[in-house]
Amino acid sequence: MNPAVLEQLKAITGPAGWLTGAHDVAPYVRDWRNKWSGAAPIVMRPATVEEVAAIVSTCADAEIGIVPQAGNTGLVGGGIPDNSGQEVILSVNRMTRVRAIDPQNNTITVEAGCILQDVQEAARGAGRLYPLSLAAEGSCRIGGTLSTNAGGTNVLRYGNARDHVLGLEVVLADGRIWNGLRGLRKDNTGYDLKQLFLGTEGTLGIITAAVLKLWPLPRDEVTAWLGLAGPREALAMLQRLQDGTGGQVTGFEYMAASALEMTFSQLPANRSPFSKEHPACVLMEAASSTPDGDLRRVVEDELAKGLDEGLLADAIIAESTAQARAFWQIREDMPQAQTMMSGSISHDVAVPAGSIADYLDQVSEQIAARVPEARIIPYGHLGDGNMHVNLCAVSPADGAALLSRADDVNDIVESLAVAFGGSFSAEHGVGRLRMRQMDAYKDATELGLMATLKRSLDPANTLNPGKVIAPDRLE
Amino acid sequence: MNPAVLEQLKAITGPAGWLTGAHDVAPYVRDWRNKWSGAAPIVMRPATVEEVAAIVSTCADAEIGIVPQAGNTGLVGGGIPDNSGQEVILSVNRMTRVRAIDPQNNTITVEAGCILQDVQEAARGAGRLYPLSLAAEGSCRIGGTLSTNAGGTNVLRYGNARDHVLGLEVVLADGRIWNGLRGLRKDNTGYDLKQLFLGTEGTLGIITAAVLKLWPLPRDEVTAWLGLAGPREALAMLQRLQDGTGGQVTGFEYMAASALEMTFSQLPANRSPFSKEHPACVLMEAASSTPDGDLRRVVEDELAKGLDEGLLADAIIAESTAQARAFWQIREDMPQAQTMMSGSISHDVAVPAGSIADYLDQVSEQIAARVPEARIIPYGHLGDGNMHVNLCAVSPADGAALLSRADDVNDIVESLAVAFGGSFSAEHGVGRLRMRQMDAYKDATELGLMATLKRSLDPANTLNPGKVIAPDRLE
Repeated sequence: MNPAVLEQLKAITGPAGWLTGAHDVAPYVRDWRNKWSGAAPIVMRPATVEEVAAIVSTCADAEIGIVPQAGNTGLVGGGIPDNSGQEVILSVNRMTRVRAIDPQNNTITVEAGCILQDVQEAARGAGRLYPLSLAAEGSCRIGGTLSTNAGGTNVLRYGNARDHVLGLEVVLADGRIWNGLRGLRKDNTGYDLKQLFLGTEGTLGIITAAVLKLWPLPRDEVTAWLGLAGPREALAMLQRLQDGTGGQVTGFEYMAASALEMTFSQLPANRSPFSKEHPACVLMEAASSTPDGDLRRVVEDELAKGLDEGLLADAIIAESTAQARAFWQIREDMPQAQTMMSGSISHDVAVPAGSIADYLDQVSEQIAARVPEARIIPYGHLGDGNMHVNLCAVSPADGAALLSRADDVNDIVESLAVAFGGSFSAEHGVGRLRMRQMDAYKDATELGLMATLKRSLDPANTLNPGKVIAPDRLE
Repeated sequence: MNPAVLEQLKAITGPAGWLTGAHDVAPYVRDWRNKWSGAAPIVMRPATVEEVAAIVSTCADAEIGIVPQAGNTGLVGGGIPDNSGQEVILSVNRMTRVRAIDPQNNTITVEAGCILQDVQEAARGAGRLYPLSLAAEGSCRIGGTLSTNAGGTNVLRYGNARDHVLGLEVVLADGRIWNGLRGLRKDNTGYDLKQLFLGTEGTLGIITAAVLKLWPLPRDEVTAWLGLAGPREALAMLQRLQDGTGGQVTGFEYMAASALEMTFSQLPANRSPFSKEHPACVLMEAASSTPDGDLRRVVEDELAKGLDEGLLADAIIAESTAQARAFWQIREDMPQAQTMMSGSISHDVAVPAGSIADYLDQVSEQIAARVPEARIIPYGHLGDGNMHVNLCAVSPADGAALLSRADDVNDIVESLAVAFGGSFSAEHGVGRLRMRQMDAYKDATELGLMATLKRSLDPANTLNPGKVIAPDRLE
C-alpha cells in the first residue's frame, strides 16, 4: 500500500488511533471462530465521527477499500478483509460514548462502538429496557448489530435491531457526514434514509452513532423449560401462550434433543433440567411491565392445558433468577458447543412460522437420504420461523468427509427454505459466507436493484468491497 | 398528449380499465378538501400487476409522468397531478383482492387497492388485528397508507404503516415487477428493498401488493375521556398509564379546549362528555388481548392516583361500546370540523415527546405576538409527539387575511418544531404541500442523498414527478 496514504491516515488520528504491528492487527483480521481471515496494512481506530469522515475521504481519494468493524463477533465474515493486504480496517471500538439518554422520550443516543451490554445497562439505569439480546451481547457493538440488523432472542416481542432505530449518524462513501440523529416516532419528510444503512453490512455507509428506542422495564418475568414431541407441538404451545398472555411471550427457543445432547456433552457445566429426555425442549420467557400482574398464573394455566391436551410432555417454571439464568445458559452455550463438533456446518434459515414443522421434516428426510454421515442439530427462534439448522458428523471420524460436502448440505437446507418462501440468511447476514447463495436464490431484478443502490451510493466500491454484492455485478 | 400513446394505454386494460370523460376523471384530479387540483388526459385503472407494469413501461417509453393514486384521501396533494394535462393517473382502486391470510404466521397479503377497513375486517374474521387506524379508514386504500407511511391513532402501540410490512410487490420505473412478497419476520439477505418504496409517495416505484403483519385481537379494551390542565399533565398521565398497564396504552389523543369547542359547534351531533369544560381533554384507550385481565382496574387505579395528585381534573370511563364510539367520533370529526373554519391552516409536526409542552408554549407565544388574528386549535397524538397545530381566524371575517399570512404561520409552527429536533411533517408526508419546507429545513447532504436515490431508481423522473424531490435537484 502507498506509504504516503498510510502516513496520511496515521496523521488523522495520531498514534492512539492506528495499529500496524502484526501482533496488534491479528485480532482484527480473523473472526473468533477462525473461519475467516485476511490481511490489512493498518487498523484505524478513530475516536470521533470527524476522524471517521477523514479516514473514509482519504481512502476514497486513494481508491482503497475500507472494511468497517465493530465487535468482530459476526458469523459470516462481513467484518474481515480479503487477503490482498490492500484493505484498511476501520474499527469503531474506541467510539463508546453514550451521548444522551431521555427516559421521557424513551430514547438513548449511543456511538457505534458501545458494547451491547453497556447499552442495556445504561437503559436499565434510567428505568428502561433496550431489548436487543443475543449470545455475543458482552462483546458485540452497536455499530455491528445495526449494520447487520441483528436478531437474537427477543425478536418475537420487540423486533430486529432495525426496528429499534429512530435515527442514525453515518459517514458516506465520499466522506460526507449525514446527521440523521433524530429521536422522533413519526417523521415523513421524504425518504427514510436510515434504512439505507441498517442491515447493509457497511457497504453503503459507516454508522457512527444511533438514536435507539427504549421500552418499559419488565417487572414480572416467567421463564419455563418445556419438554415436547417436536416443532408442531411447540408451535401450538406458542399460539396458546401468546393468546393467553396477550402477546407477552418475549422468547421461545426451540432445541432438538440432538442440540441439547451436544451442549450437555461438550460443555458439561450445563445440566438437563429434566431427568428424562424428550424429542425437543423449548425455553420460553414471558415478560410484563405490570408489577402486580398475574403473568405466572396465566402461564401456569396455559402449560396445564397444554399438558392435558398432550401438547406438552413436561414443564418446569424457573423458581429463581438463578434457575432462569441456568436455563438460558444452556441455550446461549449452544453456538459455542457447535464450534466444538466434528464436521460442524451452521445455517440460519427462516420460513413462515406456520411451515417450520413441514420444513424440518423435509430437511430431515433429504439429509438422511443424501448425506447419511450428517446429524441434524436444529435449534433456534421458533416464534420467528428462524431455525439454525446446524449439522455435525454422526461419527467424529466423518467430520472431514462431511465438510467436503458442505455445499451439498447447504443446498438442501437452504433451497428447501427458499422453496417454503423462506430466507437462506435470517439474522446473520451475507458477508463473505453467503455470496454464492445471493447469486443462486435472488432473482435478477432484486440483485439489479441492490447493485443500483451500491453503484449510486458507493460508486468507487470502497466500502466493504466484495461483501453482499459481487464486484462483477457492479461493472 | 400523443393520441397513439393514449390508444396503447387503453389497449392494455380494455374499456373497464380507463376513464377519459371529464366527469369521470374529475374525482381523480382533485382532493376531498378541494385544496389541490390538476388535470389528466386519462385515468388508468389496471386490474393486475401485469397491467400496472405495462402502463408504467408504456409511459416510461413515452417519457410521460405517472401519478399513482389509491384512495385519494391524502392531505398534501401527493396523489394529484399537475395542471399540464400531460400526466397520467394510475389508480389502484380496482386491485382489491385479499390474496391470502395466514393466522398461524400472523400475516395477510393484500392488493394495493384494498380499503383499509376491509383489511381490518378480513383480519378480524381470522381472529387477528390489523392495527392501522385513522379517520379515513373507510375510504383510504392500502397502497396509499404504505406509500405515505401512514400514522393514525394506534402508532403508540403498533408503530407506523411501515412497521407493519413484511413484504411488497412493486412495479419499478421501467416497468419491471419486483416480487418481494415474503412473509418472514427475519430475512437478512442483502438490502431491505421494501424500504425504498414505503413512505416514498410513489416516486421510486408503485406498490401493487403487500404482506402485512397481524397481531392478537384485543379482547379487553378500556376507553376513557380525561379533563386536564394541559400537555404537561397529559404527558405525566401517559407515563403513569404506560407504567401501570405495562405499555398497553394504544391511543392517547390530546385535544385543546379550542379544538373541542370547534368540533362541538361545527358538528353538533357531537356532545361534550363533561358538563364543565377543561383547558384540554385526552381520549385514551388501552387494550389487552388477555380476556380475563384486570385492565380496567389498573386504569381506574392510575386515574384515581392522577386525580389525587392533581394531574387530572376529571375522568369518565366509557361504560359501553356505544359510549366509547361517541368519544372517538369527537376526535375523528375534528379534521372535518377544521375544514369548516374560516382561515383554516393545518400542520402536522412532531417533536420528541418530552418537549411537546415547551414547544406548544413557544408556538402560542409567537403566534399571539406575531399573528394575533389566529387562534390555535392543537390536537393530536401526544404519545408520539405528533401534534396537529392547526389554526383558524379568531373572527370569521379575518379568514382571508389569515390565509394570506399562511407562510408566516407555517414558518413559526414548523421552524420551532425543527428547532426542538422535530419534524415539519410527521405523518402526512410531503406531496405538493411541503416542498418549500424540504428546501428550507433539510440539509444539502440529506437532499442530495434523496436526489441520488431518485435519479438511480427513476432516471427519467416519470414516477410522481415534482413530488418529494424538486425537479431542479435532479438536474
